[in-house]
Amino acid sequence: MRYSQIFSKTSKTVSHDADSANAKLLIQGGFIHQEIAGVYTFLPLGLRTLRKIEQVIREEMEAFGGQEILMPALTPKSAWQTTDRWDGFDVLFKLEGAGSKEYALGATHEEIVTPLAKDYTFSYKDLPFAVFQIQNKFRNEPRAKSGLLRGREFLMKDLYSFHASESDLDAYYEKSKDVYLRIFERLGFDPKITVTTYASGGAFSQFSHEFQVLSEVGEDTVYMCEKCHLAINKEIIDAQSTCPSCGNADLLEKKGIEVGNIFKLGTRFSEPFGFKFTDEDGQMKPAQMGCYGIGPSRIMGSLVEVYHDDQGIVWPKSVAPLQVHLASLGKDEIVQATCDKLYQDLKDQGIEVLYDDRDRQVGAKLADADLIGIPLRVVVSKRTLESDSVEWKERSVSDAETIPLAGLIEKVKECFSG
Amino acid sequence: MRYSQIFSKTSKTVSHDADSANAKLLIQGGFIHQEIAGVYTFLPLGLRTLRKIEQVIREEMEAFGGQEILMPALTPKSAWQTTDRWDGFDVLFKLEGAGSKEYALGATHEEIVTPLAKDYTFSYKDLPFAVFQIQNKFRNEPRAKSGLLRGREFLMKDLYSFHASESDLDAYYEKSKDVYLRIFERLGFDPKITVTTYASGGAFSQFSHEFQVLSEVGEDTVYMCEKCHLAINKEIIDAQSTCPSCGNADLLEKKGIEVGNIFKLGTRFSEPFGFKFTDEDGQMKPAQMGCYGIGPSRIMGSLVEVYHDDQGIVWPKSVAPLQVHLASLGKDEIVQATCDKLYQDLKDQGIEVLYDDRDRQVGAKLADADLIGIPLRVVVSKRTLESDSVEWKERSVSDAETIPLAGLIEKVKECFSG
Repeated sequence: MRYSQIFSKTSKTVSHDADSANAKLLIQGGFIHQEIAGVYTFLPLGLRTLRKIEQVIREEMEAFGGQEILMPALTPKSAWQTTDRWDGFDVLFKLEGAGSKEYALGATHEEIVTPLAKDYTFSYKDLPFAVFQIQNKFRNEPRAKSGLLRGREFLMKDLYSFHASESDLDAYYEKSKDVYLRIFERLGFDPKITVTTYASGGAFSQFSHEFQVLSEVGEDTVYMCEKCHLAINKEIIDAQSTCPSCGNADLLEKKGIEVGNIFKLGTRFSEPFGFKFTDEDGQMKPAQMGCYGIGPSRIMGSLVEVYHDDQGIVWPKSVAPLQVHLASLGKDEIVQATCDKLYQDLKDQGIEVLYDDRDRQVGAKLADADLIGIPLRVVVSKRTLESDSVEWKERSVSDAETIPLAGLIEKVKECFSG
Repeated sequence: MRYSQIFSKTSKTVSHDADSANAKLLIQGGFIHQEIAGVYTFLPLGLRTLRKIEQVIREEMEAFGGQEILMPALTPKSAWQTTDRWDGFDVLFKLEGAGSKEYALGATHEEIVTPLAKDYTFSYKDLPFAVFQIQNKFRNEPRAKSGLLRGREFLMKDLYSFHASESDLDAYYEKSKDVYLRIFERLGFDPKITVTTYASGGAFSQFSHEFQVLSEVGEDTVYMCEKCHLAINKEIIDAQSTCPSCGNADLLEKKGIEVGNIFKLGTRFSEPFGFKFTDEDGQMKPAQMGCYGIGPSRIMGSLVEVYHDDQGIVWPKSVAPLQVHLASLGKDEIVQATCDKLYQDLKDQGIEVLYDDRDRQVGAKLADADLIGIPLRVVVSKRTLESDSVEWKERSVSDAETIPLAGLIEKVKECFSG
């Protein structure tokens, strides 16, 4: 992409609503544009990042047996009444349409997926299966805050699993923990700061689990067992004050950002919807369900919270909007021609390049590169070309180095391999 | 994909709501599931089809200079008041959130994209540009009908272009017609039945244009000039009763399904939002705008309306959910083993295969293949294997042929090349 051709631009001014590093940097970097408190447009660079996050999650969900579907945002009042959540779910956006029909905007999709799964499940032979979607959710938050962390409209991956027995649900649920930890690692979170956290369970299981990324700006408080790399959510610390795995009572208080959660639903939803199947023994039994959520837009905000410095964002390689930030400095024709060729050569090798071909001051171009946070910056100037070189700087490393133009492409490919 | 592992299934019964071929066949084929009148879930096969349609459109929009963004569904009342459409747009879903904030669900996005574009446009040097999104729209239709053709929630590709002058808008608008015709051809519509149609223009241009696919079940009436392959919408036939291109008055009345539309907005939205830029002459001028829509979900429904027979859907190759429908007939072990290997070999060659590995009657499996409508059916049975052959049948052709197993993969690749 030529930066001169992207309509969105970086900005030096900070929105007064930017109450968090992710809101501030993503707006200033030209990734998102605020429309309403907690409601954002994803601009070209932001959408690229979001799609990369989605794709990592999609791949892992498919490998975990999930079948992708797409449920609607408009959901019928009757479904929420069936589960007693029309009045019980406090952040439900409600609306009325033609013919006095009442709808809720999907804040979660148990009310849609349960009757849907019921329609295609007849006997134990149809179980287990799992479906997932990557789709917008709506929550009527009293106070939207923290940029992409707590929005009124946000992207969610929600997977729902359906089982013939509790033991089958339990086994799948256990496996999902490893899948989730792998997802967070692939998304760029250091495994050292990603902690599986015990949370309240509900009627059908003692615990649910959250995945917390430790961060001083996190709004959640967790109590961590460093031996087991597990934590307990504040909500249940009175009931469970020791590590559920090793019994350790010496837990450390930490702040975290919740980046995912998994929950055994048991028959909480299958019962009210009458979702039963014929089991091997000929008996009709309610299906066992689990749900598994990760919010790609929240992940995007969380990554910025954890990976930024005073100059801007430091995107992990796996989800950066592009791989190389190529900048030409000065108006020299040879610089321009060299950059144009390099841009084409890199693209031909499948490397994703943001080419800052604008006619701007050196300082402004380098500041924009730092703000946008693409992992590798390659700068070409008259000075570097005097020694047939370019300046090479990884965003996560403080020092730049001068390296020969010859062999650059191989070095870039190496930088992004594996 | 192994058909035995897809949770959604074909169905012999027709929903009482299925008032159209597309609703009936897409529901029976396991592509979509109705949640509310005009609101559907896309099941695995349906979502694959929808994504292919989206991708064709995305590629053409990017080639046409469009930059992809993603705007929200929640839009602020104030924006609709600015353009006098809060009360004037009769299918707007309205809702209230925390703090008595009022929102509309995006039925179209001029009210969001205009102030967005304004924030990044300062001078004529920033123009022209175009942005597009592929995103859900919501319309409070009094009567949802015709399956995916007129829904209350549906997928839309909307591109908006911004220009410094009317002449630049005019030139871009003219080019968009060719882009649109190419899109419909790539999506599988026969160019012979896709007709650019003059429609009412509004304050800023004499005409807008629709793209109509001629079909006896279409709800629109158009008057066609066969010489110019152009039509006039019924709404303006009194004002424009001859072909706008050649003056021909001998127009044929036809029925059509609208599959896209383009519209010059002029300054209809830039004026109320105060979207002005500094022109070359130093003057502040309002930006000129155009909008260009295609609904991927409506396209999916339209394709089914046009391309089906008594047995089921006949998907065009370009957007079929998968390319090959491989079916094993009978429980013979050699049949099973041959199919398993063929499935793997085809997948290894990048061919997309729906492998019907279920233990079902021959008739049921063949009926499902016809209903689902994948372009090429390959059947393996004990009988075909006696002559080291398979049965080959293209969905759009009535006769099956027996062809040697050797060389099959090459023949499949040929079938889908070009």
